[in-house]
Amino acid sequence: MLERNGGSRHTGAVQRFVRCEADGKICYAELTDNRVELFSAAPWNGGTPTGVRHDLADTRLLCPLNPSKILGIGRNYGAHAREMGAAPPQTPLVFMKPPSALASPGELLRLPKVSQRVDYEGELGVVIGNRARYVPREQAMDHVFGLITTCDVTARDLQKSDGQWTRAKGFDGFCPVASSITTGLAPTPLQLTTRVNGEIKQQANTSDMLFDIPQLIEFVSQVMTLEPGDLILTGTPEGVGPMSSGDVVEVSIEGLQPLTFRVADA
Amino acid sequence: MLERNGGSRHTGAVQRFVRCEADGKICYAELTDNRVELFSAAPWNGGTPTGVRHDLADTRLLCPLNPSKILGIGRNYGAHAREMGAAPPQTPLVFMKPPSALASPGELLRLPKVSQRVDYEGELGVVIGNRARYVPREQAMDHVFGLITTCDVTARDLQKSDGQWTRAKGFDGFCPVASSITTGLAPTPLQLTTRVNGEIKQQANTSDMLFDIPQLIEFVSQVMTLEPGDLILTGTPEGVGPMSSGDVVEVSIEGLQPLTFRVADA
Repeated sequence: MLERNGGSRHTGAVQRFVRCEADGKICYAELTDNRVELFSAAPWNGGTPTGVRHDLADTRLLCPLNPSKILGIGRNYGAHAREMGAAPPQTPLVFMKPPSALASPGELLRLPKVSQRVDYEGELGVVIGNRARYVPREQAMDHVFGLITTCDVTARDLQKSDGQWTRAKGFDGFCPVASSITTGLAPTPLQLTTRVNGEIKQQANTSDMLFDIPQLIEFVSQVMTLEPGDLILTGTPEGVGPMSSGDVVEVSIEGLQPLTFRVADA
Repeated sequence: MLERNGGSRHTGAVQRFVRCEADGKICYAELTDNRVELFSAAPWNGGTPTGVRHDLADTRLLCPLNPSKILGIGRNYGAHAREMGAAPPQTPLVFMKPPSALASPGELLRLPKVSQRVDYEGELGVVIGNRARYVPREQAMDHVFGLITTCDVTARDLQKSDGQWTRAKGFDGFCPVASSITTGLAPTPLQLTTRVNGEIKQQANTSDMLFDIPQLIEFVSQVMTLEPGDLILTGTPEGVGPMSSGDVVEVSIEGLQPLTFRVADA
């Protein structure tokens, strides 16, 4: 019975949330099969179902997030730290991406002219559900709203030359995310796969993270207050590599909506 | 005549904008002498005067900003780069602070237990007025709403040990700002002074910046879209140093509302 229902992988009701434009209005909504039910506000900000439903085909999907901040975690898989020539960090290595880096579903990833090498980094994203400040790891999952498939796009050459990673990871569109957030699913163990033009480039399990999600929330919330809707990118496994114009990148995480985007010149 | 009016220092009408709680509502407002006139929205988001006025004494001042992102510029004064043992950068060194680091007027700066050295860094802040994307320096000032006195508080030990500056500069309260934004004032040349317990620690002129504000906006807007209300901290001059519990820090910039805050243990 546990096996059939996915066992401990489910922490609550599995639901999918999107943001969409329907009848000229932009709303958060729950996605069930091919229908959406509009919500009164973001579900992590107290939004509730309105009873208004649309066929998915009659809506335009938008980025399902509007965070006050996006945090990233560097070198959070041992094999990736090694491929970067770096030792695994002793504490989580935190960086930020600007909200302006988020991309809407279907948006092209534009390669900035100033970089000669822009890499994919498939990652599990965690969306905060309740404000988190000094939260111990044992209670951290109470502050998680849901999970989302993401890609921490990185201009590898600028990352090295700048030292600080803000520019390299901060270009417009450098944070594409899947079109829906999934609730009720434990973040580990989930298989993560990144394909470029159908070829597998990254394959790992979220249980291989050096610092798991409760540890990350504990660490980050000792520094800064995490607000509902904030996004944490939890690090990429080994196998990162460059993208070229015309490439199609797909990041898949077990149980979540996959993320697909096409690469184009600026 | 030019001299008497401040000459080229004035680029338009000099106005001061605050955000305040009045009659139980939170509003942006224009401050004139000791009165505020409430605005319908943030002035950089199309807000206009409502005609509703209050005595300043009857309101509670809040942080006058609610940016989608806060950018900082490292080592933007040559003498400060040298005191840090670093060469002046060839291009602007961009980092981010989270919006959760903003402090309200009068809020204590809490020293985090995990740091042994937390420094003041008095800085001129620039508030964006119009969306900026690929803006050439010649047009950059058209995208500035106003100026504000800020302090880029930094846990110096964590800045060194982490490598990435996000944690060291990202603690709650590590971005105190003055209670008002001033419009219509050219950002250079303005005298900047930081005092700790009345003693002068930093004294420089904004004209000593390595990259001036038009250059910074040009550079950053080639990476990421700057949204109305976004804040850029333009770097600190030489003379940075540590703060202790009980210290009173004052950052003054010619023509702007000064920033004063008191330091306390966590």
